Amino acid sequence: MSSSAQIGVTGLAVMGRNLARNFARNGYTVAVHNRTPSKMRALVEEFGGEGEFVPAETPEELVAALERPRRVMIMVKAGDPTDAVIQEFAPLLEPGDMIIDGGNAHFADTRRRERELRERGIHFVGTGVSGGEEGALHGPSIMPGGSAEAYASLGPMLEKISAKAADGAPCVTHVGADGAGHFVKMVHNGIEYADMQLIGEAYQLLRDVAGYTPAQIADIFRTWNTGRLDSYLIEITAEVLSHVDARTGRPFVDVVLDQAEQKGTGRWTVQIALDLGVPVSGIAEAVFARSLSGHAGLREASRGLAGPSARPLGEKEAAAFADRVEQALYASKIVSYTQGFHEIAAGGEEYGWDIDEGAVAAIWRGGCIIRAVFLDRIRSAYDARPDLPSLLADKGFADEIAAAQDDWRAVLVAAVQQGVPTPGFSAALAYYDALRADRLPAALTQGQRDYFGAHTYKRTDTEGTFHTLWGGDRSEVEA
Amino acid sequence: MSSSAQIGVTGLAVMGRNLARNFARNGYTVAVHNRTPSKMRALVEEFGGEGEFVPAETPEELVAALERPRRVMIMVKAGDPTDAVIQEFAPLLEPGDMIIDGGNAHFADTRRRERELRERGIHFVGTGVSGGEEGALHGPSIMPGGSAEAYASLGPMLEKISAKAADGAPCVTHVGADGAGHFVKMVHNGIEYADMQLIGEAYQLLRDVAGYTPAQIADIFRTWNTGRLDSYLIEITAEVLSHVDARTGRPFVDVVLDQAEQKGTGRWTVQIALDLGVPVSGIAEAVFARSLSGHAGLREASRGLAGPSARPLGEKEAAAFADRVEQALYASKIVSYTQGFHEIAAGGEEYGWDIDEGAVAAIWRGGCIIRAVFLDRIRSAYDARPDLPSLLADKGFADEIAAAQDDWRAVLVAAVQQGVPTPGFSAALAYYDALRADRLPAALTQGQRDYFGAHTYKRTDTEGTFHTLWGGDRSEVEA
Repeated sequence: MSSSAQIGVTGLAVMGRNLARNFARNGYTVAVHNRTPSKMRALVEEFGGEGEFVPAETPEELVAALERPRRVMIMVKAGDPTDAVIQEFAPLLEPGDMIIDGGNAHFADTRRRERELRERGIHFVGTGVSGGEEGALHGPSIMPGGSAEAYASLGPMLEKISAKAADGAPCVTHVGADGAGHFVKMVHNGIEYADMQLIGEAYQLLRDVAGYTPAQIADIFRTWNTGRLDSYLIEITAEVLSHVDARTGRPFVDVVLDQAEQKGTGRWTVQIALDLGVPVSGIAEAVFARSLSGHAGLREASRGLAGPSARPLGEKEAAAFADRVEQALYASKIVSYTQGFHEIAAGGEEYGWDIDEGAVAAIWRGGCIIRAVFLDRIRSAYDARPDLPSLLADKGFADEIAAAQDDWRAVLVAAVQQGVPTPGFSAALAYYDALRADRLPAALTQGQRDYFGAHTYKRTDTEGTFHTLWGGDRSEVEA
Repeated sequence: MSSSAQIGVTGLAVMGRNLARNFARNGYTVAVHNRTPSKMRALVEEFGGEGEFVPAETPEELVAALERPRRVMIMVKAGDPTDAVIQEFAPLLEPGDMIIDGGNAHFADTRRRERELRERGIHFVGTGVSGGEEGALHGPSIMPGGSAEAYASLGPMLEKISAKAADGAPCVTHVGADGAGHFVKMVHNGIEYADMQLIGEAYQLLRDVAGYTPAQIADIFRTWNTGRLDSYLIEITAEVLSHVDARTGRPFVDVVLDQAEQKGTGRWTVQIALDLGVPVSGIAEAVFARSLSGHAGLREASRGLAGPSARPLGEKEAAAFADRVEQALYASKIVSYTQGFHEIAAGGEEYGWDIDEGAVAAIWRGGCIIRAVFLDRIRSAYDARPDLPSLLADKGFADEIAAAQDDWRAVLVAAVQQGVPTPGFSAALAYYDALRADRLPAALTQGQRDYFGAHTYKRTDTEGTFHTLWGGDRSEVEA
């Protein structure tokens, strides 16, 4: 067997298999390995005609099939299975070789693995891969971390198999060292949670307040998809809402159990944001909304709680209301992305990654679940001002929110009065109003903390840290 | 030296010193030790007249001074310092002895330490202690975890030094095994964050929408403190708001920098809730509000953002509005505690603690920061129905929210229209409206997830797990 394969893929479940095929279809020779060799043989048998595959029955065979420096891509479950496979392959590799983890690893694990392998001279590339099965096969958005040296060797291959944005740019960039790629992928998923929650709230408002049917709402989403909200998620929302259940003849969305599931990455995004001190209220509300929906017993016990019912509008008012919902959705979406990019910036600073936020926005324009025209706007904002402290500090976005906010507020007033839950829209508006506030009640909080715990406070008019003798004569002392 | 001390305290910073004094003032002989012995000597010199202290210059001396089984209370910084002190004392102890950690440890650390010490036959009691310096001296609320055997020996002492509720009951109970005490203390602090945030929002609304001065608002809080909101935090809010800054003659709250600080436990409460799948949106918004307030640069960059200004009301409308704010605050507070007690129940289930929620509410009635008449109501609700699935399922609370909700909604409408940020009030209402909703947009979320990731869904009308062939003929298959 000649050592001619440019890349090896181990772990041939659907994501690994499709990535391997994607490499082969792009002209690379791909060595393939799976713990259970039958899966590997099935891949070669079924898709061998798509390109050059080298079947490997063992890790040793996979490694022997690779040109140097070797590139071994691991596509197994995040967590212990990833560590186990790394332990299996690392002893077979030489300094300068690369291990690429394309699973949904926690970035802290990626940092640890990168450090451990670096000590053995092996490059470890933790990379986010977004776009699901289809993306893996036809072109995902790829977010690799790791060393610049590894990217120099691997980057061109990833660029080839990645999705391409509308302007032809490959949806891959070297995000930063060690865990940067998996960190950015995590935030991507958090933003995806928020996007989906906001769309869900828009749907519920159009349904309950405006009184539209799912089919009518699908048409509204189709219209929105021709404008600034143009995105994959808006597109598939229309598809889901217009689908009719064959078994009952009812709208599909009405026969699906309304209990959503959550996986690790949305939750991680919020947990890490808390560690970093970054407010990501919109993402948090999206994660909470999913877990709330799943508490069937709690919901059952709450059925009788008092509250208003929505009063569907007349036809003309409904159309006007739908326009307002579009404004509210768009404004809330700007806030979600503001929070997500704040987390990316804070993570980059904490871990020394020097992340180019504009480049991250650019590689999300294709291949991934949150792909959207909107991301081009974010890229432009960062390109125009790389040190942008917040998306809301971009004049374009600020102007759009200024134009949207009356409608945004009107929609929330209707939701509050009619009892339609809008945790995402509400959290976004509260964030916006808090950021622009002259004074926040945090001053009272600091006063309370000083009162009960002598936690001290700072003053607006002078430097220093102070404490008031609350239990004494209430004079102020410097702490 | 005779072995006559009932308890030893090591770590004599303010909390440790005051707890040691509290034990001594209650008739116990207390051995005291500090890494720097001068602190220990200062304590004995200054407060020796309050009771029986046995000075110990070394860990060995402290242990030698104790009757058996020995009780060693550690009052040092959470984290590594706690482990270091445990490593120092454990070898000096014998099976049956107890180590008590009264710091703000993460409950997962407490679980680990309990397990490690149990293997050596030593009881480890991780206990929450709430009430700050004053509470530690005069009677804190105490939340001990650990074995029943340890509580049998230690409990009577803790009952003696604890705060007493209005009915005379000591504010201490055996919360549950290993980490249960620190878990409950963590949630206590999360609820404290939410309480303070809600009070802050009420203040801001009374200031900006009603147009009251801080002194007037202090009077309103004093009035509230005579009713169902009667609590320590409402009481001290009035004190802080009525305080006038001596240096400037301005209201104190106006000269304090409005950037709040956050410590670990509020953040942990949210992070653990995410792991447990419990929606604690009110606590999360409180933590986020603090971190947002601290991002001075971000706030500075957002000053120019468009939005309405509040329009202060006339005198008569202002008074009516203040009454509405009381309703909104009370309703939101019910939701906060609902979320917090949900987390306690979920933690208890996850870790097998068998926590008596009514007993937890009872021991928070005195000594701690969130002490309030309200907690008696919660205790009664759980006493009446120990398997209460949610505080909102209690008829008394449900009726109160039913009566409050029109005002609650009216207050939020004013906040939204006038641009006053109310993340806590809004999150609470969204939670309430989501729980009582017949259908949630989670059905759409599940449809989207099935579309882009083949994540499957369940149906409302039949058992099983399904997938729609979205890329094919859109027929449904059983997954």
